[in-house]
Amino acid sequence: MMGSGVYAGVHTLESVLAQKDVDGVSVKDALGAIGYGGDARPVPLCAYFEAHIEQGPVLEDAEVTIGAVQGALGQRWFDVEILGQDAHAGPTPMALRKDALLAASRLVIQVNRVARDYPDNARATVGHLRVSPNSRNVVPGRVDMTLDVRNARDETLSAMVDDLQRSARLIAAECGVIIDIREVLYFPPSAFDAKLVDSVRAAASALELSCRDIVSGAAHDAVHINRVAPTAMIFIPCEGGLSHNELENVTPEHVTAGANVLLNAIVAAAGRAD
Amino acid sequence: MMGSGVYAGVHTLESVLAQKDVDGVSVKDALGAIGYGGDARPVPLCAYFEAHIEQGPVLEDAEVTIGAVQGALGQRWFDVEILGQDAHAGPTPMALRKDALLAASRLVIQVNRVARDYPDNARATVGHLRVSPNSRNVVPGRVDMTLDVRNARDETLSAMVDDLQRSARLIAAECGVIIDIREVLYFPPSAFDAKLVDSVRAAASALELSCRDIVSGAAHDAVHINRVAPTAMIFIPCEGGLSHNELENVTPEHVTAGANVLLNAIVAAAGRAD
Repeated sequence: MMGSGVYAGVHTLESVLAQKDVDGVSVKDALGAIGYGGDARPVPLCAYFEAHIEQGPVLEDAEVTIGAVQGALGQRWFDVEILGQDAHAGPTPMALRKDALLAASRLVIQVNRVARDYPDNARATVGHLRVSPNSRNVVPGRVDMTLDVRNARDETLSAMVDDLQRSARLIAAECGVIIDIREVLYFPPSAFDAKLVDSVRAAASALELSCRDIVSGAAHDAVHINRVAPTAMIFIPCEGGLSHNELENVTPEHVTAGANVLLNAIVAAAGRAD
Repeated sequence: MMGSGVYAGVHTLESVLAQKDVDGVSVKDALGAIGYGGDARPVPLCAYFEAHIEQGPVLEDAEVTIGAVQGALGQRWFDVEILGQDAHAGPTPMALRKDALLAASRLVIQVNRVARDYPDNARATVGHLRVSPNSRNVVPGRVDMTLDVRNARDETLSAMVDDLQRSARLIAAECGVIIDIREVLYFPPSAFDAKLVDSVRAAASALELSCRDIVSGAAHDAVHINRVAPTAMIFIPCEGGLSHNELENVTPEHVTAGANVLLNAIVAAAGRAD
């Protein structure tokens, strides 16, 4: 999403070109090495469509071919540091422990509780967790973990985060640990262009394809472009909802259906464009 | 504890000499390199005493100088593998997830609950936990963790493990994951020699030192030797209960007291020996 981020003014060109991969190679040098470090100027867009696999299991579960994407969930990402006290697992009675992993586990459960309690396509995930010293017979003194909270409405997103922060304060007090939560990323929820989303629904209908509204849980180039041009997305089902995985799979029928909806929606938007 | 394990017949000499460190150096070669690979025959023991820091916070917390160690907790160690399904944290609704870290977190909480519910110096710890793929925006598909369960009575130890296995089955069913628990180590609880433990109490009393009975949560050479000879241990407090840590600390007064109790108990035992 670097290109769309620069196009939409979310990032500067310089900041993106300066970013480096794990081997220390910058984006600028990598683009130069393959001859893609051009000087093309961005063109204005009157409409932007993006076709994508759903990356989730909703369409497959509902046996629907086309998802008319209404927008994307807002996202707030956090780094969480939990500090307790390393201790020998044998001689240290339970009542005298400050177990950072016990506190982390209670927080993971609250993260899942909050995602189930709140409306508006709420999701919350701890994807990364690292234990220190991470030794079989040592009560963990430290845990570093991430927190990914998503919602279709910004107010509900904030309410989820507030709820989690209250839970974290309670857990810290009860477990005798320090919990520090720092925000590292924020995407507001995005609503795609109503007319373009309508043209996706109309194209599916004209082609006699089953269609339902859906909200994207992931960020896409469309989320950036939506800031500067009318935008819509078309989803098709993917097997088991899997993506970013060697098992990712789609059927030729769904790909054909998605491409035809894309074509018809673009033609309709072009007929309406200035 | 390799030497005491061979002496007590827990390990064979050959199996211990063949063990290698992370650099591939065997115990046999390492002993040979420093001239300690001797051929001394084990001598029979009529009594064995071991003085040690407590490695826990109990004596310090109670402001007592000498712990008369009655025995050591039994230990059962397990490797736990939890298999769920990796999924994108954005598009995957909560109800369709198979989150291995959520299951692991629920199990960590049950491990702590069991250690608090059961009597006889119950302890239970998850010290090591590894998440896969361990990425911020991926629902974890796999967790590998350890489980360390200790108790002064073998029956209670078994009851704790049974309770945890029931909890794990329930969590696996509710989270849609597979939980596999494999035992990797078992030390039965050990009770030290009643007369030698009495001689520790008597020595503390004669020296006008505060003394209380205590059970060792950790394994020591004494646990192996206890199988083949009358054994006792003497604990002194250590600062903050910390051990195996750069902050480990004892006071000269406590070390002196422990050494004097050791001397007096040995002299008493020698007077009684055949």
